[in-house]
Amino acid sequence: MSFNKRIKIKHLIENTYTGETVTVMGWVRTRRSNKHVTFIALNDGSSIQNYQIVADPEKINEELLKKANTGACLKITGTVVASQGSGQQSEIQADRIEILGEADPDKYPIQPKKHSLEFLRENAHLRVRTNTFGAIFRIRHHLAFAVHQYFHQKGFCYLHSPIITASDAEGAGETFQVTTLDLKNPPRDENNAINFKEDFFERATNLTVSGQLEGELAALALSEIYTFGPTFRAENSNTTRHLAEFWMIEPEMAFYDAEDNQNLAEDFLQYIIGFALENCQEDLAFLDQRAAEEEKNKKAEQRSELGLLERLEFVTKNTFVRISYTEALDILRNSKPNKKKKFTYPIDEWGTDLQSEHERYLVEKHFKKPVIITDYPKAIKSFYMKQNEDGKTVAAMDILFPGIGEIIGGSQREERLDKLTERMQELGISQEEMWWYLDTRRFGTAPHAGFGLGFERLVQFVTGMSNIRDVIPFPRTPGNAEF
Amino acid sequence: MSFNKRIKIKHLIENTYTGETVTVMGWVRTRRSNKHVTFIALNDGSSIQNYQIVADPEKINEELLKKANTGACLKITGTVVASQGSGQQSEIQADRIEILGEADPDKYPIQPKKHSLEFLRENAHLRVRTNTFGAIFRIRHHLAFAVHQYFHQKGFCYLHSPIITASDAEGAGETFQVTTLDLKNPPRDENNAINFKEDFFERATNLTVSGQLEGELAALALSEIYTFGPTFRAENSNTTRHLAEFWMIEPEMAFYDAEDNQNLAEDFLQYIIGFALENCQEDLAFLDQRAAEEEKNKKAEQRSELGLLERLEFVTKNTFVRISYTEALDILRNSKPNKKKKFTYPIDEWGTDLQSEHERYLVEKHFKKPVIITDYPKAIKSFYMKQNEDGKTVAAMDILFPGIGEIIGGSQREERLDKLTERMQELGISQEEMWWYLDTRRFGTAPHAGFGLGFERLVQFVTGMSNIRDVIPFPRTPGNAEF
Repeated sequence: MSFNKRIKIKHLIENTYTGETVTVMGWVRTRRSNKHVTFIALNDGSSIQNYQIVADPEKINEELLKKANTGACLKITGTVVASQGSGQQSEIQADRIEILGEADPDKYPIQPKKHSLEFLRENAHLRVRTNTFGAIFRIRHHLAFAVHQYFHQKGFCYLHSPIITASDAEGAGETFQVTTLDLKNPPRDENNAINFKEDFFERATNLTVSGQLEGELAALALSEIYTFGPTFRAENSNTTRHLAEFWMIEPEMAFYDAEDNQNLAEDFLQYIIGFALENCQEDLAFLDQRAAEEEKNKKAEQRSELGLLERLEFVTKNTFVRISYTEALDILRNSKPNKKKKFTYPIDEWGTDLQSEHERYLVEKHFKKPVIITDYPKAIKSFYMKQNEDGKTVAAMDILFPGIGEIIGGSQREERLDKLTERMQELGISQEEMWWYLDTRRFGTAPHAGFGLGFERLVQFVTGMSNIRDVIPFPRTPGNAEF
Repeated sequence: MSFNKRIKIKHLIENTYTGETVTVMGWVRTRRSNKHVTFIALNDGSSIQNYQIVADPEKINEELLKKANTGACLKITGTVVASQGSGQQSEIQADRIEILGEADPDKYPIQPKKHSLEFLRENAHLRVRTNTFGAIFRIRHHLAFAVHQYFHQKGFCYLHSPIITASDAEGAGETFQVTTLDLKNPPRDENNAINFKEDFFERATNLTVSGQLEGELAALALSEIYTFGPTFRAENSNTTRHLAEFWMIEPEMAFYDAEDNQNLAEDFLQYIIGFALENCQEDLAFLDQRAAEEEKNKKAEQRSELGLLERLEFVTKNTFVRISYTEALDILRNSKPNKKKKFTYPIDEWGTDLQSEHERYLVEKHFKKPVIITDYPKAIKSFYMKQNEDGKTVAAMDILFPGIGEIIGGSQREERLDKLTERMQELGISQEEMWWYLDTRRFGTAPHAGFGLGFERLVQFVTGMSNIRDVIPFPRTPGNAEF
């Protein structure tokens, strides 16, 4: 006998069931009673909205109702009636209530009061049951789905690039070692070094920092591909912006130059953020309100000029400004905050990297639009970026958003074998280890480009959460691998 | 100046461009010439079909045409004309050909001849440029997209369960250790054991074997979730069925019992395989043909009764048979191959696990339909499965397909705290380490269920490839982490 004959609360709210007998299941958010009646606010995770259950003590046993505490799980059958109070259109007059699972109010951590985000992080296994985290993870789902839908509609192939890898050619940062060796007593070779020949993969391996290089291999066969998978950095950074484990989206496209790459990235960002605006209205309205409350606790000069929804529309409704690094540097050098020495990092010489404060100045104060900066000095960018003819810059791009600065980094890739190997030699990158990467330039090379989007940065931008640990279900950070 | 003004070959084939001047880009598959004309078969990865380019030596420099070897990358502008030969409707009369990247025929490994799958595995960075692997990875993409679309339409939330974890409670097999400790000289504690307090996460961590337990946490808040991410087994199995790194799909649903779970799994499999049948017709036709050729090389008794496309329709057009383990055992015990001692593992006592040969007998010979086996002996299943009232069995299910046997394993989960902890104690599983998992049974527990599908097994089934290493871009197996 099938158990799941329930109607989801989302459907109850969005459709008319008046007069029908229905079954709902979910968790009690609050319960209040008077002599005549008990009201239960029920949530089943399908919507941020709770649904009101009305229990008449003449029909429902009072001892049972006392067990319907916050967090308890109930199965309720009853009649849908037009709601008397304000708020929702309908409610259920309960005929039968069954307690599927109790929640002892003296022990259940998630009580109907304001909990700190720190407390909820320690209870990450239960925080999904709160309004804030329910909203965040529904939005995260919609953003992920929009990514797949966008690329699928354009004919891109989703590529699962490897997670365990022997290459760290990008030099993007510290990596996690992956091994099955006995750490207490690892095998040694004749030089007393660890003998990785006896490890599972017969060599030293680590967790990937990026799927880009493998993505390029596939793009030079299928034309247009994207990856969407976990990547890892073993940086000991205990900040609100860093995770040791996070998800990256990395499209790679043959036959795209730098401008094609910029066009795609702009269109892509507007699509996925537009998708969330269209499909997550209630959750976004809740988080917009939440962000506005948070702003009130900040000092006047730290407050954001735009609300959460305004920031999202800032992206979907504006054409992105495109300027070169050199132009950006000129603007910043002559800007008021630079002349008045308000930047922590004063702008001076051509060649220095831009800081978040500079990026935000360009977006929020100068252009009041999202900004794409192109053609960075080659010394501050990766070896695989296409070298421009000036000999000084590469065909890189960074896309800058309000509030967070860089959201996307990408470039046209260096497809010329001689230029690429020359640069690798300058930087001391082994060509022998990268034989497979170089093969794509040896055989049938083509102009190609791509970019990377840190998915959690995007979810942070869309949900307005200031700590990146609050937008991934179970964050991995230094000292933290619980759950 | 944007570079990518090309038309994809897929679009050229599916639409009418006769008389128009277009640009295509792609890789040469073959070239043949006579005195009057050169024909180039071009592929850009958007389709398994090559597109014919006709080059008149009066228009196109002959020295240039000599460089258009197999594997070279070309940019061609010309006029679309109706095709003279059989096969495709149209072809391009080239006005201009540009060599984007050459491919020296003496060095390029992927020549227009039959290569062994072993050889192509060693050249996994280039094998995507072949018909077989282009087809496989386009199908893999469509299956992945169908998974996301199916669950999105049903209102499930996509959950990114953690990859690095400190828990191995499922005991599903050997795990890979993840560490930043100096392997040559790891820190020791006072007992001379490795001091994991100094490791990145301040404890020993490993790569996940399953996202199920974290999935349950989220299901008991959001109702219906699914994971789709990489999982890892450090088993030293050098077989055609094992990968050290593979992708799993794991839905978990609150308010579902065993039957609801079976209904969902059956509907899900039929949807995603139906999606491939509908959207990957040309690629599947090619692989169907390929599989038929392979069959010819097998001994008569090892040949499959069904072709590849027939096996897919076997799944989408049949209602799955549902029987209990006990019923299945009776059928097998009284079957001809058992009586004639043809099974490698003879069927005898109640309680033994079924082998692939038994599963395939049930599906292919006895029922001639996909089969769901339910209610397995609890001794051969995991601790978290719901215990049936008979005290002997659990509410497990395995779904069996022709050719491969088990494709899905799942169960209703044990939601009763006392039953769950009792079973954990019997099996020696630490309740202390699993405090967060048990919390969901302490607070607002509910009947819930879920299942797991190994994505590569599915891709194998749909593509007919017999070695699992040929359905993932860069396979990880013992001794193998190249690319």
